[in-house]
Amino acid sequence: MPLPVNIKIIYEGMEEYGSEGMFETCYDLAKPGKFLADVDFFCISDNYWLGRNKPCITYGLRGMAYFEVGVECSTKDLHSGVYGGNVHEAMTDLIKLMGTLNNTKGEILVPGIHKDVAPVTEKEIESYKSIDFNIADYMEETGVTAVSGKMMHDNKKDLLMHRWRYPTLSMHGIEGAFSGAGAKTVIPRKVMGKFSLRLVPDQEPKQIADCVTAHLDSEFAKLGSPNKMWIKAHHGAKSWLSSFDHPNYVAAEKAIERVYGQKPDFTREGGSIPIAGWLEDATQMNVLLLPVGACDDMAHSQNEKFDRKNMINAIKVLGVYLHEIANIKGPKPSDCRCEPPSPAEMMIPGAFARAFACKCEM
Amino acid sequence: MPLPVNIKIIYEGMEEYGSEGMFETCYDLAKPGKFLADVDFFCISDNYWLGRNKPCITYGLRGMAYFEVGVECSTKDLHSGVYGGNVHEAMTDLIKLMGTLNNTKGEILVPGIHKDVAPVTEKEIESYKSIDFNIADYMEETGVTAVSGKMMHDNKKDLLMHRWRYPTLSMHGIEGAFSGAGAKTVIPRKVMGKFSLRLVPDQEPKQIADCVTAHLDSEFAKLGSPNKMWIKAHHGAKSWLSSFDHPNYVAAEKAIERVYGQKPDFTREGGSIPIAGWLEDATQMNVLLLPVGACDDMAHSQNEKFDRKNMINAIKVLGVYLHEIANIKGPKPSDCRCEPPSPAEMMIPGAFARAFACKCEM
Repeated sequence: MPLPVNIKIIYEGMEEYGSEGMFETCYDLAKPGKFLADVDFFCISDNYWLGRNKPCITYGLRGMAYFEVGVECSTKDLHSGVYGGNVHEAMTDLIKLMGTLNNTKGEILVPGIHKDVAPVTEKEIESYKSIDFNIADYMEETGVTAVSGKMMHDNKKDLLMHRWRYPTLSMHGIEGAFSGAGAKTVIPRKVMGKFSLRLVPDQEPKQIADCVTAHLDSEFAKLGSPNKMWIKAHHGAKSWLSSFDHPNYVAAEKAIERVYGQKPDFTREGGSIPIAGWLEDATQMNVLLLPVGACDDMAHSQNEKFDRKNMINAIKVLGVYLHEIANIKGPKPSDCRCEPPSPAEMMIPGAFARAFACKCEM
Repeated sequence: MPLPVNIKIIYEGMEEYGSEGMFETCYDLAKPGKFLADVDFFCISDNYWLGRNKPCITYGLRGMAYFEVGVECSTKDLHSGVYGGNVHEAMTDLIKLMGTLNNTKGEILVPGIHKDVAPVTEKEIESYKSIDFNIADYMEETGVTAVSGKMMHDNKKDLLMHRWRYPTLSMHGIEGAFSGAGAKTVIPRKVMGKFSLRLVPDQEPKQIADCVTAHLDSEFAKLGSPNKMWIKAHHGAKSWLSSFDHPNYVAAEKAIERVYGQKPDFTREGGSIPIAGWLEDATQMNVLLLPVGACDDMAHSQNEKFDRKNMINAIKVLGVYLHEIANIKGPKPSDCRCEPPSPAEMMIPGAFARAFACKCEM
């Protein structure tokens, strides 16, 4: 059977590392006559189902802002026995700074971070009710059952909201300090703490970076340390929210129903796939996230896997999806020249139908 | 020229790693008829001069107590995008705990740590005055000049006292967290913070471990975290203080004067060489620290070195020292059966002359 549509493929090899240059490339390739200019629908398979068995389609992602805060006390590592008590140690300052970022309840303590978080609507709260989500399974999946048996929240709605629509801050580690097994007695000369925030509508990475910088500058001043301190903002990305009413999503929904015999859940994700927003902003065309992996595939972790069953069904779903796309009637979205919806409009699932709600004379 | 004394050599290959079993071995080999039983004088060359040019003899060392505080939140590493906001992250707890240990001024905040620190005497304060110590050189040596140009104290006496006779706490790093370059977005499942204290007379490692454990237990309870927390006490060693009036020290002093044409400074050290105290306690014989390296040899650090000039003079000094030991008149120390001096007596430099002040009928 011949392919019913034309396909263009983008490989993003440095996604986990900030994809330097990809943002500019998307915008450049969206110009008239270039590679992305005539694309009508985007489909990305880079996330996961909410559970192990029921397929999902994803219409929202959190953004992210990754930071490094560094402190330097010397031009060389020092012996803590010989110099301990005489040198203002970089680790002491860094640990104090990192300790001001959040607390055990998961609250972010950096002033100004929550300013632009979109308010919760009744409609949104309603939308969580029908989602298939088992807290006991989820606790098992995260490996928390065997350790504490306690998640940050004890009900489905709060767990999903803190995973999808509230910002969060995680500390990842420290570069430059001793990190091995055993008992080394070094005073590290220069240490860089790594942490990141996941962003939600309508937070802007730039505004977040300003808040983090102002906060750390102020906290470092309070310490009264003579050491050198600096803040580096790594890659950032806005959150992304689409609409599951869009024909692109309807095509994917039909494909899943055909292969699995059931309708998918429409979900959002806590993670970030910056290119989803970049492609949408650059081309003004709809982006679909069509996950094919199960929730327990353990991305970035020990024993990452991809079930054979999921792989085989993924091939089927993506094949049927292409045929469903070919069945869409009407003008091509790339002919539409409407203004894109506002960020506020994009917050409401279903309200953003892009080119298919267009009022232009395409 | 034949050797004028008999020599026994001890190699301590795991000194930097806690020398497991060495403590028990010292006591075992000190029993009548065994390897250490007939040793009259010990000499260890495992430390450094205070400066680059003037030789030193060292009569005191700080002890140490090394700790690991661990927090576990899951059985597997997690993706901060997917699970951030839903899991009580181990790093958040650990950073808070480590932040309660000390402050930027170098003050240790663990209650009870200072209880057994021996009081400062007028005689001790007097003894710092004649020490050859250049703060500008020291700042250069520690690599602080190019970064902040500020040490913890601005005068010789306070710097030396905080290096030699006050306890200190250093944080070395975190095992289990992200420690590489770049921007990984992991939630580490289990993280262990490493820190150690340098101990001084009359602090006991056991009492210090009790204080640290009680403090961290109390701080962890305040956090209200459901995660698992544990404290592991690695190797510990008491501080050690000898007397430079002892004939063993006088022999070394003469050897240095012969080779270098000048008298050495008598110094203490911020570092720890646990076997110095173990040998002394086990055998009741005098232990001499005879450093042969310069202050800028950079132990445990980048570009560690040993000047050729120092190596050649070290051979000469150690040779002459053996001949000076052979010249000591009187009964052999190993014949003495006196009670050892009290810890309080050992605090006063010069007051501890061991077997040569003996009152027994050897």
